[in-house]
Amino acid sequence: MRGPDPRTGKGLRVTTDADSPPAGRARLADVARLAGVSVGTASKALSGNGRMRPETRQRVLDAVETLGFRPNHHARTLHTGRSWTVGLVTTDGIGRFSTPVLLGAEDALGEGRISVLLCDTRGDAIREQHHLRNLMDRRVDGIIVTGRRTDPRSPLRGVEPIPTVYALSPSTDPEDMSVVSDDGNGVTLAIEHLLATGRTRIAHITGPAHHAAARDRARFTVELLAASGLEPATGRVHFGEWSEAWGRRAVEALLRTAPDTDALFCGNDQIARGAADALREKGVNVPGRVSIVGWDNWDTMALACRPPLTTIDGNLAEVGRRAALRLLDAIASRPEPGVRAVSCRLVVRESS
Amino acid sequence: MRGPDPRTGKGLRVTTDADSPPAGRARLADVARLAGVSVGTASKALSGNGRMRPETRQRVLDAVETLGFRPNHHARTLHTGRSWTVGLVTTDGIGRFSTPVLLGAEDALGEGRISVLLCDTRGDAIREQHHLRNLMDRRVDGIIVTGRRTDPRSPLRGVEPIPTVYALSPSTDPEDMSVVSDDGNGVTLAIEHLLATGRTRIAHITGPAHHAAARDRARFTVELLAASGLEPATGRVHFGEWSEAWGRRAVEALLRTAPDTDALFCGNDQIARGAADALREKGVNVPGRVSIVGWDNWDTMALACRPPLTTIDGNLAEVGRRAALRLLDAIASRPEPGVRAVSCRLVVRESS
Repeated sequence: MRGPDPRTGKGLRVTTDADSPPAGRARLADVARLAGVSVGTASKALSGNGRMRPETRQRVLDAVETLGFRPNHHARTLHTGRSWTVGLVTTDGIGRFSTPVLLGAEDALGEGRISVLLCDTRGDAIREQHHLRNLMDRRVDGIIVTGRRTDPRSPLRGVEPIPTVYALSPSTDPEDMSVVSDDGNGVTLAIEHLLATGRTRIAHITGPAHHAAARDRARFTVELLAASGLEPATGRVHFGEWSEAWGRRAVEALLRTAPDTDALFCGNDQIARGAADALREKGVNVPGRVSIVGWDNWDTMALACRPPLTTIDGNLAEVGRRAALRLLDAIASRPEPGVRAVSCRLVVRESS
Repeated sequence: MRGPDPRTGKGLRVTTDADSPPAGRARLADVARLAGVSVGTASKALSGNGRMRPETRQRVLDAVETLGFRPNHHARTLHTGRSWTVGLVTTDGIGRFSTPVLLGAEDALGEGRISVLLCDTRGDAIREQHHLRNLMDRRVDGIIVTGRRTDPRSPLRGVEPIPTVYALSPSTDPEDMSVVSDDGNGVTLAIEHLLATGRTRIAHITGPAHHAAARDRARFTVELLAASGLEPATGRVHFGEWSEAWGRRAVEALLRTAPDTDALFCGNDQIARGAADALREKGVNVPGRVSIVGWDNWDTMALACRPPLTTIDGNLAEVGRRAALRLLDAIASRPEPGVRAVSCRLVVRESS
């Protein structure tokens, strides 16, 4: 496997008497030899293909470090016709939801030495068009689009030749590549956990009904309770806001209409925390009398909650990572259209 | 002023009979004419120099949109010898503090059609070196470095020829360009507000003493109280953690040792919120008996606090924007070394 570098066509450097060649003079073959891998594998570790054992990649990166190997960017671009750059478009600021997606994507792309051009469109159509033109002018290899809501969004226009993956907010076009967090799976984890701990009078308090995240989680909750012959403790879903204040208000109403409620499944951690505060201030023991499960695993909320909150983690960094890997596949002419959903995780703390 | 484009040397297109030339065919002179500005101003609006009236820039951008004008990136790079790209290096993830800095910088740079390459080093030295090499290989015009702490950091190594600005976390080298939030100014705003509302027994609860943000704010607080002939209500500063739990614990201790305390100045909003919760649960009225001022203006904390929190806003987006403008100046060969501090803002809500 120690043949010429398949990408540059250049042969191996045959001198082996220097363990530390002058910085910047090392070649890919030297890196491969030091890492104990083939030149092809070393190339793969440094190129756009993100799929290999992390230990192997680390060995290659260590060798790169030791030898001071520097692939020339412009030479790489000329050889490959690629810019080794991906545009990451966030459509509504960079916040609590887009940040982990962005970091997961950056991580997967950075391993392949692909750089991320950040474009924050702030929900402004003109700004988005400017950013997209700029990405086209820079000949990016691909685009990842992310937002803070789970509602489907219209596909980007005018970028058709460039592979594009939608993360978190899927494209309305089912033929596009989208990666989302699996809300149905999250609801299943939450409800099965509450049922398994003996709770049967489960209320659902969530965000505004015009948000897909609230609507979808509510629908799955009602369906799943029905499958166990149950209905929500108060006979209906409580739609409101994604806020602590709403969690507190909802609990007031709920204690009046359904005082035998023994569990609250909340659409996010802020609502859950507000609910926990209201119950404590009413002298209702959590989890003794009422269990609470939130959603997001937002550490600031979940850990500061009294008691610390059991919650659903949407695995958003994994959503970003998978989006990046699907984009790399598409760039390598192996696109797989359609929506892929990443499983959630139940994080059990003291509120249930 | 309607002469040839000073950058391309090409003359004005003289046809004026088409309001909508074919997309992509418009030239800068057409954009300038439609916007009612000189070609120089249009060029400036689209180039790296971010200084002009926002309305003027908007008129140029509107004209760009209307005419479908697309400056070719590679042509621009060839003409100017610049990559029109800036590296944004975050040293410890992207979180609550680096996000507004990043958005402020992206905003100021994006106006000049400069793209931002995102590099998240996660505090890992090897990762940082890889990212910096990549930025060098891509011939970025400049680098902005940001982190989540206000502690000074060592300068980047090996990037000396590239203009670099440190945002939020200043460089330890005073000859470097750094932009920080002015903690002394923030403390002044907080203490003067409390004194002006008649409070004189002011306690200070803050984060760990090994964080510059805690140490600096504590020192300024003690100095400023001394200047009014006062000392902290409990005779000392309460160093602890940046958490609600610490705020709650500190209040318990404080009510025992200095029950006549009439104001709490807290090092961040989480501590302040914990303190507000503990006081409410002890039946101590806020702000009736004790005023509270926090720090960060983190809306999640400040607005969910009962009562909503008066707090110091560190203006972090402005820190990012100023860092970007200083970088643009340095790229244009007008570097101004040294640390610049951005003023804070007092946001008065119901806790004081």
